[in-house]
Amino acid sequence: MNPSSPKAHPKDAAPGSAVVLLSGGLDSATAAAWAAREGYRLSALSIDYGQRHRCELESARAVAQVLGIRDHVVLPIDLAAFGGSALVDPTAEVPKDRSDADIGHGIPVTYVPARNTVFLSLALAMAETRGAAAIVLGVNAIDYSGYPDCRPEFLAAFQEVARLGTKVGVEGRPIELVAPLATLSKAEIIRLGLSLDLDYGLTTSCYDPDSRGRPCGRCDSCLLRAAGFAAVGATDPRAAL
Amino acid sequence: MNPSSPKAHPKDAAPGSAVVLLSGGLDSATAAAWAAREGYRLSALSIDYGQRHRCELESARAVAQVLGIRDHVVLPIDLAAFGGSALVDPTAEVPKDRSDADIGHGIPVTYVPARNTVFLSLALAMAETRGAAAIVLGVNAIDYSGYPDCRPEFLAAFQEVARLGTKVGVEGRPIELVAPLATLSKAEIIRLGLSLDLDYGLTTSCYDPDSRGRPCGRCDSCLLRAAGFAAVGATDPRAAL
Repeated sequence: MNPSSPKAHPKDAAPGSAVVLLSGGLDSATAAAWAAREGYRLSALSIDYGQRHRCELESARAVAQVLGIRDHVVLPIDLAAFGGSALVDPTAEVPKDRSDADIGHGIPVTYVPARNTVFLSLALAMAETRGAAAIVLGVNAIDYSGYPDCRPEFLAAFQEVARLGTKVGVEGRPIELVAPLATLSKAEIIRLGLSLDLDYGLTTSCYDPDSRGRPCGRCDSCLLRAAGFAAVGATDPRAAL
Repeated sequence: MNPSSPKAHPKDAAPGSAVVLLSGGLDSATAAAWAAREGYRLSALSIDYGQRHRCELESARAVAQVLGIRDHVVLPIDLAAFGGSALVDPTAEVPKDRSDADIGHGIPVTYVPARNTVFLSLALAMAETRGAAAIVLGVNAIDYSGYPDCRPEFLAAFQEVARLGTKVGVEGRPIELVAPLATLSKAEIIRLGLSLDLDYGLTTSCYDPDSRGRPCGRCDSCLLRAAGFAAVGATDPRAAL
């Protein structure tokens, strides 16, 4: 299917099984809800990579549960051992209150080196082991933080890796990357999720939540989320906690 | 540089810093020794992925030590949680006594789904964090076990991922994959290592060693290694243990 089209699979054509990368954030939860609606038989993979915002793993578990995904692997991998990002370094400052003009332009200090490459490679390993036909992921390069590994050209390159670097790929059945949100705005993503009755109160987007998991409301991720809900004219149930 | 040419960097042109993927096997040790001789400032990454042959991690530590590599990360990641390979499943049989005609033709049950994609993605994360210019790896697609993710076309695809999916790549300084052994026969690899005074007694190749780490002598990896030493006319110090 075309990863940029969330409507490429009509309901009457069962698309097979897939591994969904579930971070616990708004985007991946929407992608998972979309895939469930499309009829994918889903397994989920979440990565416990030493992120400051570990409460998102609890969100990932909650989202998997409401979507009826029983095969959910939460894999620990200590990217903090390498260091190098405000998202894994508890002493680094997460940027706050940046303007619309700054967010998404340039690569911010919250960038985790090669994070999506690592996550996709793990999803690829899980998908091949499970015999899954696809990997579903919630990356988006419209209202995003400016990370290079969210762009469509990156996904296309990884698709080639998936084709050439796996047994199923060599056998002519490459595992397909499906990124239904790739070209949607944050408002369009939220509208899609609401149309699927996704409870966004289960999701966590903040890069720097407090010790009780409450969002800061001021990091890039919180600001993008708030702008999205505002554009839709909806209330964010998470912000109201 | 051309990854297939082990002599592309003359000694008088310092090639910068690199992360070497060090498994503890013969090939990666030779690649590391080559890179050290070439003048790379090396960090090493070994992956503890639930392999049956975990003694290779001790070999990796020994090789890093003799090569003077102080920055050596041994990263645990539980690929056995996904299952799917005789190399991570303690109950599966590792094939033994296969003929030359069988080894390297078809993908054997020892294939670990997407293993080199996972390893390269982690090396990419470490390399970008360390500011390294290159990743050195000992993959080889001549005398090899037939894994798809050892082939040059796979490495070329991953090179694109490294260029498009990292901050340094976007900034025009992509991390380079350097595979000095890609087109060498096992005998040529061993000849290279011996010319570099590499002690192969430190390395472990066996997929199914006994509880004391002694090689079985009969798996594909042992057979390829023995044939290589025989072709060179040298004695394998590890086989004599």
